[in-house]
Amino acid sequence: MEQTFTEEELTLPTCKYEYLDHTADVQLHAWGDSLQEAFEQCGLAMFGYMTELPTVEIQQRSEIKATGHDMESLLFHFLDELLFLFSCEPFLICNKLVITEFITDGEELSITCSCYGEEFTLGKHPQGTEVKAITYSAMQIVNEPKNKQFEVYVIIDI
Amino acid sequence: MEQTFTEEELTLPTCKYEYLDHTADVQLHAWGDSLQEAFEQCGLAMFGYMTELPTVEIQQRSEIKATGHDMESLLFHFLDELLFLFSCEPFLICNKLVITEFITDGEELSITCSCYGEEFTLGKHPQGTEVKAITYSAMQIVNEPKNKQFEVYVIIDI
Repeated sequence: MEQTFTEEELTLPTCKYEYLDHTADVQLHAWGDSLQEAFEQCGLAMFGYMTELPTVEIQQRSEIKATGHDMESLLFHFLDELLFLFSCEPFLICNKLVITEFITDGEELSITCSCYGEEFTLGKHPQGTEVKAITYSAMQIVNEPKNKQFEVYVIIDI
Repeated sequence: MEQTFTEEELTLPTCKYEYLDHTADVQLHAWGDSLQEAFEQCGLAMFGYMTELPTVEIQQRSEIKATGHDMESLLFHFLDELLFLFSCEPFLICNKLVITEFITDGEELSITCSCYGEEFTLGKHPQGTEVKAITYSAMQIVNEPKNKQFEVYVIIDI
C-alpha cells in the first residue's frame, strides 16, 4: 500500500554527521609440526590477508632477523619484520618462509628467516586488506612437544 | 637482478592457518541545533553506513518508540529500534527521521519517532556495511543549551 506524503514530509534533512575512527582486526590462527613451522605459517597467514597467495611467484629472497625477550615478543617482532618487508622496499609479498635459525632459550631469543616471494604488483596481485599493525592482544602460543601441539594465535589490526 | 632458486626452494608449503574472529567498528559523530536533532542525525549516520542515502526515496513511514533510564540508554535503544526496522520487515532504510516526542526528564525517558524511507532493495540501493550492533563503548552525549552545543558520539559494531 503506497502512502502519500506532504511536501514538508518529503523535504530531506541536511547532513550533520561524520564517520570517525574506523577500527578493525582479525585473529590469525596457525599451526605446524613444530613451533618453528607454526611461526612460519602465521607469517604466511598475514601475507595471505594482503593478497591471494596463489598469484605470487618466487622471484626474490630476503633474509630477516628478529629478536625478543620472550616467545611472545619474538613472535611479535618476527611478524613486524615481515610486515616491514612489505611496507618498504622491496615491497615483498611472501608465499614461503623458512626459519633457518630459531633460538628460543637464553636471555635473547632470536629468529633468522629466509623470505621467498616477489614484489607486490597491482594488476598481478589482487589487493587484499591492509595490515596496519601486529598486536599483543590475546596472543597465545601453544608449545607442547609431548602432545605434538604447536599453535599460535595473533590479532592484527587491519 | 633476477635470482635463481633450487627446486626445493621453489616448493611451496601447505596451508596450516585460518582466519578467526573478525571484528570491526566505526564511530558515528552527529550534531544539531537541538539534542533531538543530534539524535535524528545519529540515526541517519547509521543508515548512511548501510547504503548511499541519496539512492533512497520516501515511500513509507513507520513509527518507533524507545525508552531509557538515562540519556545514554535512551540513545542506545533509539538506535537499536532503528536497526530493528532495517533487520526485520519492513526492511526500512531511512533518509529522514523526525522525533515527534522527546521526553528527557522524569523516571523513564522516551522517544517517539517518525521514520521515512523505503524498503531496502538490492540493485536500487548499493550494499554498504552491515551494522551488527550498537554499543555503549565510549558513548558521549554533549547537551549544552547555553553554548548551543548538541552532539553525540556512538560506536557501532560492523
